[in-house]
Amino acid sequence: MIKIVLDCFGGDNSPKANVDGAIHALMKNHDLHLILTGDEATIRGCLWAESLSDRIEIVHAPDVITGEDKPTEAIKRRKESSLVKGLELLRENDDIAGIVSIGATGAVLAGTVLRLGRIKGVLRPAFCPILPTMHDGIVGVCDSGANVDCKPAYLKQFAIMGSVYLRSVYGVENPKVALLNVGVESEKGGVLHQEAYELLKACDSVNFVGNMESRDLLSGKYDLVVCDGFSGNVLLKATEGACLETLGRLKRGFGRNLRTKLGALLLKKMLMEEKRFLDYQNYGGSILAGAKKIVVKGHGSSKATGVEKCIEQAYKMASSGYCQEVERALLESKPEE
Amino acid sequence: MIKIVLDCFGGDNSPKANVDGAIHALMKNHDLHLILTGDEATIRGCLWAESLSDRIEIVHAPDVITGEDKPTEAIKRRKESSLVKGLELLRENDDIAGIVSIGATGAVLAGTVLRLGRIKGVLRPAFCPILPTMHDGIVGVCDSGANVDCKPAYLKQFAIMGSVYLRSVYGVENPKVALLNVGVESEKGGVLHQEAYELLKACDSVNFVGNMESRDLLSGKYDLVVCDGFSGNVLLKATEGACLETLGRLKRGFGRNLRTKLGALLLKKMLMEEKRFLDYQNYGGSILAGAKKIVVKGHGSSKATGVEKCIEQAYKMASSGYCQEVERALLESKPEE
Repeated sequence: MIKIVLDCFGGDNSPKANVDGAIHALMKNHDLHLILTGDEATIRGCLWAESLSDRIEIVHAPDVITGEDKPTEAIKRRKESSLVKGLELLRENDDIAGIVSIGATGAVLAGTVLRLGRIKGVLRPAFCPILPTMHDGIVGVCDSGANVDCKPAYLKQFAIMGSVYLRSVYGVENPKVALLNVGVESEKGGVLHQEAYELLKACDSVNFVGNMESRDLLSGKYDLVVCDGFSGNVLLKATEGACLETLGRLKRGFGRNLRTKLGALLLKKMLMEEKRFLDYQNYGGSILAGAKKIVVKGHGSSKATGVEKCIEQAYKMASSGYCQEVERALLESKPEE
Repeated sequence: MIKIVLDCFGGDNSPKANVDGAIHALMKNHDLHLILTGDEATIRGCLWAESLSDRIEIVHAPDVITGEDKPTEAIKRRKESSLVKGLELLRENDDIAGIVSIGATGAVLAGTVLRLGRIKGVLRPAFCPILPTMHDGIVGVCDSGANVDCKPAYLKQFAIMGSVYLRSVYGVENPKVALLNVGVESEKGGVLHQEAYELLKACDSVNFVGNMESRDLLSGKYDLVVCDGFSGNVLLKATEGACLETLGRLKRGFGRNLRTKLGALLLKKMLMEEKRFLDYQNYGGSILAGAKKIVVKGHGSSKATGVEKCIEQAYKMASSGYCQEVERALLESKPEE
């Protein structure tokens, strides 16, 4: 039995989408057990699958932390919130493997650091979301925003933690790891990048293939991109924004006249398929690599499918012993600060 | 008469595209005078407009600096290169207003710093390219890669220099300036961003509207985005890459079957127009704001149109007294290091 906590509040479509996602995940994975945190009556009102009730537990937590709250303060004070309650359950129960939250990113990060802690040897936990590449593959970005200021040794650990993730959850045999930089040549970038380049090159447990320019993120040439959290965040949101803006502009073009409308009609099926392919909901959430137990943070606008994918990610990570793998891999690599 | 140097070598399509671009620009602007640097015989071989010869001067420079060369070293040693020769001409002749180069970015930057110098008061020159937004407007990004490591005061100057540029060359009345950050809230980012935020907020000569997330670059909400050169480079190339990858993926989708092929055929005209709209060649090059005289760096793959646009940018900057405007604006703002 794999036990996971689902924070049912936070997220634009919570608690309905969260509870629906939970039910779908339970239907697919028969040794999954979910602990739902949040206002008990509201959650009960959303539940619709009686037959699953022996694998669902509800822990009452009437308070909700939102994006408006100051993360650190909220985590310290809002003990009755669905997130803090969930993290407490996770910390105190050996048989619970992880938590999924669709709530505020800052609060999930602060909560993990303050209430859960890190895997032994981890310098900084880091977000690692997965994106679809344009050639039907995937690529991970680590760190996508947990650490705006980084040291070279952090980036080396991001590479190790991200590689373990891609290997254990997505079956990528020997993940090709690139360092985000302003050019591909080894001497590019500032002090951080040049030192990180040397550390990565010398690291046996990482299949480092060199620098990557941001334009190549979706090219399919790399499995994992490591970077500081600031540029990772810029990279991710710029890519997402440009994809959406391009599609939006084309959509406006489709409506231009009768001819274009007819053309768009013929392409409708293909375009819907492409839209589904690009939909981040199908790629789950961002893991917080390096946290003591499994933490998956879903996109704030996740619908039931998105939540379900996040739960499945956590489930797969638990099955593959992700946290133990990371601890082992970090021990094997030379430690440094 | 406005005199501008055109480095005719460097760039994937040089010298042919460079010389063609020069001729087109001369045809359109009757008080433009161009000094072409590079191998004289080769340039003469490319010239085809006899009637313009009184506004064309050729200065022989047999050597070419490429992207393979170490920028600083090349600038110091390769005195017979078309770029160094061009920069020397610019420095030594009061009547020459600027230079356009399609050559290696690093060399243009190093050459400007070492051979030309900065406008009085400028802490660091910065690249400021212009992009089309998805709602038919434009947006500038400053710095897009000249300075990988930045101090808050640099970013304030980037805002001032970029605002003058948008006002004087593109007629944007009161450019809305945003700071690139990981969230829109004022306290977001690291030390650099928080301090830059305060400086920008306090700066009277900049219409600062707050933080911008990278996904909003093409939204049309902002006229200028300021950032350190590393994240600016990530922002720019990620946006460019994602647009191209999205279009490429759709293009593959168009060829899927007879139905999609027919649809694509009906959309062809619209798609061609969109492609032209998104083509960076139509937006000229990136200026190196803060250089003592006008420096425009064109995209390495520029064709004749791209080169022509770069020359026209330099021409407009010269006509509007860009460098003098920047010096004045910096003097008016409180100086700081």
